[in-house]
Amino acid sequence: MSEKPLILVTNDDGIHARGLRELVEVMHFFGDVVVISSEVSMSGKSSAITVDQPLRAVEVEKINGVPTFKSNGTPVDSVKLSFNSLLERTPDFVVSGINHGANSSISIIYSGTMGAAIEGSLHGVPSVGFSLDDFSPDADFAKAKIIVAKVFQSVVENGLPPFTCLNVNIPKGKPKGIKVCRQTHGKWVEEFEKRTDPHGREYHWLAGYFKNFEEDSTETDIYALQNNYASVVPVTVDMTCYKTMEVLQNWKF
Amino acid sequence: MSEKPLILVTNDDGIHARGLRELVEVMHFFGDVVVISSEVSMSGKSSAITVDQPLRAVEVEKINGVPTFKSNGTPVDSVKLSFNSLLERTPDFVVSGINHGANSSISIIYSGTMGAAIEGSLHGVPSVGFSLDDFSPDADFAKAKIIVAKVFQSVVENGLPPFTCLNVNIPKGKPKGIKVCRQTHGKWVEEFEKRTDPHGREYHWLAGYFKNFEEDSTETDIYALQNNYASVVPVTVDMTCYKTMEVLQNWKF
Repeated sequence: MSEKPLILVTNDDGIHARGLRELVEVMHFFGDVVVISSEVSMSGKSSAITVDQPLRAVEVEKINGVPTFKSNGTPVDSVKLSFNSLLERTPDFVVSGINHGANSSISIIYSGTMGAAIEGSLHGVPSVGFSLDDFSPDADFAKAKIIVAKVFQSVVENGLPPFTCLNVNIPKGKPKGIKVCRQTHGKWVEEFEKRTDPHGREYHWLAGYFKNFEEDSTETDIYALQNNYASVVPVTVDMTCYKTMEVLQNWKF
Repeated sequence: MSEKPLILVTNDDGIHARGLRELVEVMHFFGDVVVISSEVSMSGKSSAITVDQPLRAVEVEKINGVPTFKSNGTPVDSVKLSFNSLLERTPDFVVSGINHGANSSISIIYSGTMGAAIEGSLHGVPSVGFSLDDFSPDADFAKAKIIVAKVFQSVVENGLPPFTCLNVNIPKGKPKGIKVCRQTHGKWVEEFEKRTDPHGREYHWLAGYFKNFEEDSTETDIYALQNNYASVVPVTVDMTCYKTMEVLQNWKF
């Protein structure tokens, strides 16, 4: 039996995405790899789960020589299936990505890439989501992969606290290094584009731009990216706002 | 022009859910109400957004006499549409629910009900997700509505810090009172049910049970519910694990 760790690789851009292949290539150096992803893009699926439909997962053609499953579920469904029903061995790590486009700041709450990483951490294994700040299909993953290898090597050596995963964003071009950061305080400002279909009915395309509420802070993930550093943000699943808890204790309901 | 605040009511159980009607009824006492929801259930949709399809929203038959929109999007899509494209007035509050079933502990990360409330807080208005710990179609909402009114009254009086919303869970039966809590440390343990369809292909139903990692803690939302109190957990959108940040600062990448 293999003594190498088993690394589950997944993503939210779907099974045909280049970033997935690039991530598999890096993970080869660290252990046995198994891939699960979806036929279609699951971008923006957050931590969504499928409760009203059955899940299917079938083994398909190997990616870079490793066992590969195609699932009809969300990234979180795929992680759950992998840990509970699909695989003979329990994964020792979950890595997700490499996403085409950054998942810094508030994008973490919408990201399927990070949904999968968070779910990995809930299954008790060190988990990391990797994203490259470049949407281009010609994006250069070569330098990003060096960052992926460095961060993952540190995760293998140090482990991660339970129920904590990493959100790693990598700038395009040549990264200057790696910075441990916090999530930038910011939001997406939506500007829907309203159109009319050939039948005269209105529809809306979600669009928008990112607003950074703390341009001057140097310890944020956006600041790191803007200065050509890869950002590493440790992510907790405890969403309690403890400061506000103290305030609410004085409320008279 | 009306001086009453505008309250946006939404949910993840869909436009036909009883909990939505019950919530509208309570909100009538606090201001002008507008409803947006989906035709189908969006249970488990988390903070998912729709990026690859256009969104549609049309005005439909009023619920309890208030303007009501039906959207094809997720709860988060619906909130975004309401703030940015659909309504003439910007909502002053977002309330989501009343969900059929609790969204305590880690369920918050999968919940569409809470996805909508979190999105409301990102739009800068006080936002609350309400859930009743009872899946039964005959669930008694009468007592839950008293809790909803009490909590919302406090929110109106005190406001909420920016980018913070409330996760309110209400026990079935007669609640003893309201407790400010933190999110319980726990997780869902999945047990997929594997079946074979008439064509011989396997499929999996997501099932599972909740595991509480801190049964003895008295300040958690699960403890409150188990002792017949409604739980109020303030929720932040900052998922940075600051304790782990300090640890990572010592890593050599």
